[in-house]
Amino acid sequence: MEIGHFVAAPFCTRILGDLGADIIKIEPLAGDPVRQWGEQIDGRSLWWSIHGRNKRSLALDLKAKEARDIVLRLIAQCDVLVENFRPGQLEKMGLGDAVLREAKPDLVIAHVSGYGQTGPWKDKAAFGVIGEAIGGLRHLTNHPPGTYDLPPVRVGVSIGDSIAGLYAAFGIMSALWQRDRVAGDRKGRSIDVALTESVFSMMEAMLPEYGKLGKIKQPTGGGIATAAPSNAYPTADGGFMLIAANSEPLFARLAELLGQPELARDPKYIGNRQRVANSAELDELIARWTRQYSAAELQEKLEQADIPSSKAYTAADAADDAQYRFRGMVREVEDPALGTVLHTGVVPHMPEAPGTIRWTGPDIGQHSEELLAMAGFAPEDIAALKQHGVVK
Amino acid sequence: MEIGHFVAAPFCTRILGDLGADIIKIEPLAGDPVRQWGEQIDGRSLWWSIHGRNKRSLALDLKAKEARDIVLRLIAQCDVLVENFRPGQLEKMGLGDAVLREAKPDLVIAHVSGYGQTGPWKDKAAFGVIGEAIGGLRHLTNHPPGTYDLPPVRVGVSIGDSIAGLYAAFGIMSALWQRDRVAGDRKGRSIDVALTESVFSMMEAMLPEYGKLGKIKQPTGGGIATAAPSNAYPTADGGFMLIAANSEPLFARLAELLGQPELARDPKYIGNRQRVANSAELDELIARWTRQYSAAELQEKLEQADIPSSKAYTAADAADDAQYRFRGMVREVEDPALGTVLHTGVVPHMPEAPGTIRWTGPDIGQHSEELLAMAGFAPEDIAALKQHGVVK
Repeated sequence: MEIGHFVAAPFCTRILGDLGADIIKIEPLAGDPVRQWGEQIDGRSLWWSIHGRNKRSLALDLKAKEARDIVLRLIAQCDVLVENFRPGQLEKMGLGDAVLREAKPDLVIAHVSGYGQTGPWKDKAAFGVIGEAIGGLRHLTNHPPGTYDLPPVRVGVSIGDSIAGLYAAFGIMSALWQRDRVAGDRKGRSIDVALTESVFSMMEAMLPEYGKLGKIKQPTGGGIATAAPSNAYPTADGGFMLIAANSEPLFARLAELLGQPELARDPKYIGNRQRVANSAELDELIARWTRQYSAAELQEKLEQADIPSSKAYTAADAADDAQYRFRGMVREVEDPALGTVLHTGVVPHMPEAPGTIRWTGPDIGQHSEELLAMAGFAPEDIAALKQHGVVK
Repeated sequence: MEIGHFVAAPFCTRILGDLGADIIKIEPLAGDPVRQWGEQIDGRSLWWSIHGRNKRSLALDLKAKEARDIVLRLIAQCDVLVENFRPGQLEKMGLGDAVLREAKPDLVIAHVSGYGQTGPWKDKAAFGVIGEAIGGLRHLTNHPPGTYDLPPVRVGVSIGDSIAGLYAAFGIMSALWQRDRVAGDRKGRSIDVALTESVFSMMEAMLPEYGKLGKIKQPTGGGIATAAPSNAYPTADGGFMLIAANSEPLFARLAELLGQPELARDPKYIGNRQRVANSAELDELIARWTRQYSAAELQEKLEQADIPSSKAYTAADAADDAQYRFRGMVREVEDPALGTVLHTGVVPHMPEAPGTIRWTGPDIGQHSEELLAMAGFAPEDIAALKQHGVVK
């Protein structure tokens, strides 16, 4: 069961559902706010078609006095609850962990929040951008200090939420394995995922290098602090080409392509250390070359020279990509309300037990009746709950 | 068992090890290249202290004729293999999936690669930056088209590798649960994780909006295309402050703080849609205010007004953070070679079964002897393998 909204908890249940889990989504009568985000067609969100896929929707007013009983009767039939309210909110509704475990003793409960369920900051409001900032990611998405006076950029998507949702899914499967395996203990477990910590856990050497050497990791723009040349270079058709030629043979081949084979013998550019030291100059030389060609022309030249490279893909590039199409990562899916919609496929790919897109994001409350019946409510009770505006 | 190098597969085994898994890392005699990355103290990498923690290292020359037998005798005692060679590489060494499953019929095998194990691009070289570019992330880490003529920035860490590693860990636990639960089928499974696809799966509405409307998602710099004001604003002490005041009450309180309460009644800024339309002007007004104060002063003012906000944390901010310290996300860990090192904690936090840091990144081959003994090699055989340079 998901009692979630926005991105983190619903992303967690999306990837569990992709691999085959039966997901019950409890959503407000007005629907998950993500239904209003991004581009709409006739009032229907394209994002929702993916974000809500494989889920059954029960539209329920959690503030109604009947709500608690409905949730508890349903949870008794669930393995897992995923929620992303502010810490303590479910408890205030009479749905704290202890109460939930009375209804289902071995329930796995995943709490996803900005800062975690404990500690001095647990009650602070957090959005994805705050999680990314405190996780240390946002300081780094910028040009190097002293170059441009610009703010660090957003990654373009709510990456902190999605990473937290993925960690929650990983924690859930770990807890289920510990509980359910033949030698398992049949006990429920809690999982406490913070957006901040999920991002922070991916910061590599940032923390130990600071602790030991006082070194503060700084942004490096399009490049990498420890390897050159490796950057995003402008193309004649207005895009950018990633080129990673940061080894002696790769750089020699790139110098040939540039028509300046002597660069590979220039002491300024011999060895990675020298190239890093002179990378600004080197990047300008390369950019002068890339600006003359379209991305397609560059791709061809670089592939012939076997130099790792790629265009910075836009939505259009991804939609056309042969590899994505081959592997089902770009799929045409029939959405009853929207017609054919392009969906991203299922990750991870598991050949012996591939995930499926059984249906697209449902209407608000599309499965309310069948879920209430599953919880043991009689048809007349269901009708009364609808009439009283408790469910939709 | 991990036969991995660089970031993706080792990150996968790191988070499995954090939750208690016994990780055997097969590494080349010269060690995983990550041991050379980043800052070193006496030739020892600080990153490795985290990246290699909780792992046992068997240093093995995989090209030696004895290697295959050693791997197969060890894999017979393992639940899982994680590898990130180029597709087909293990097979060439006589260690394809079928051979591995002869030694251990129900083995779960996770392959992590740039483009996946199948398809026209499977053999292409890929680094993390290429995965991020093809995943669609890199196009978005930039300022809006037509503003600055700058390349899109790197996220600062190998985020594509880490996300792929996390997806692999999720897939592994899913496969183990399907295999091992009481009603499970006791069968091995394969997991095929691509860097490109792992990133691409987080791109939200990018693909369906393109498919249906031809809309190409564009970078938005520090802001968000659909909400204002929400951006990173400069502080007097040279940092940036994330402020998200994108609702009517939040914006009214921010206008008060700016000493310009009339902004909340200005038709240009009434309603999110108007604020988005005039966000450049609005952001400049806010930046003019934030530039007068240090990050600490701004934080205090914004917290008093209950406006979601945070400094873009640097390593120093994270190391000092009270919440991270409280929750064990910043920990002092004793490393036998390095002394006290700051480690990031374990994610996800599982109160009933918390993960642990049992030891820091080991030396190359630190556990070779005990692992060979576990595989059934006699002391004299182990001595011979060492003498012949097969293991270290």
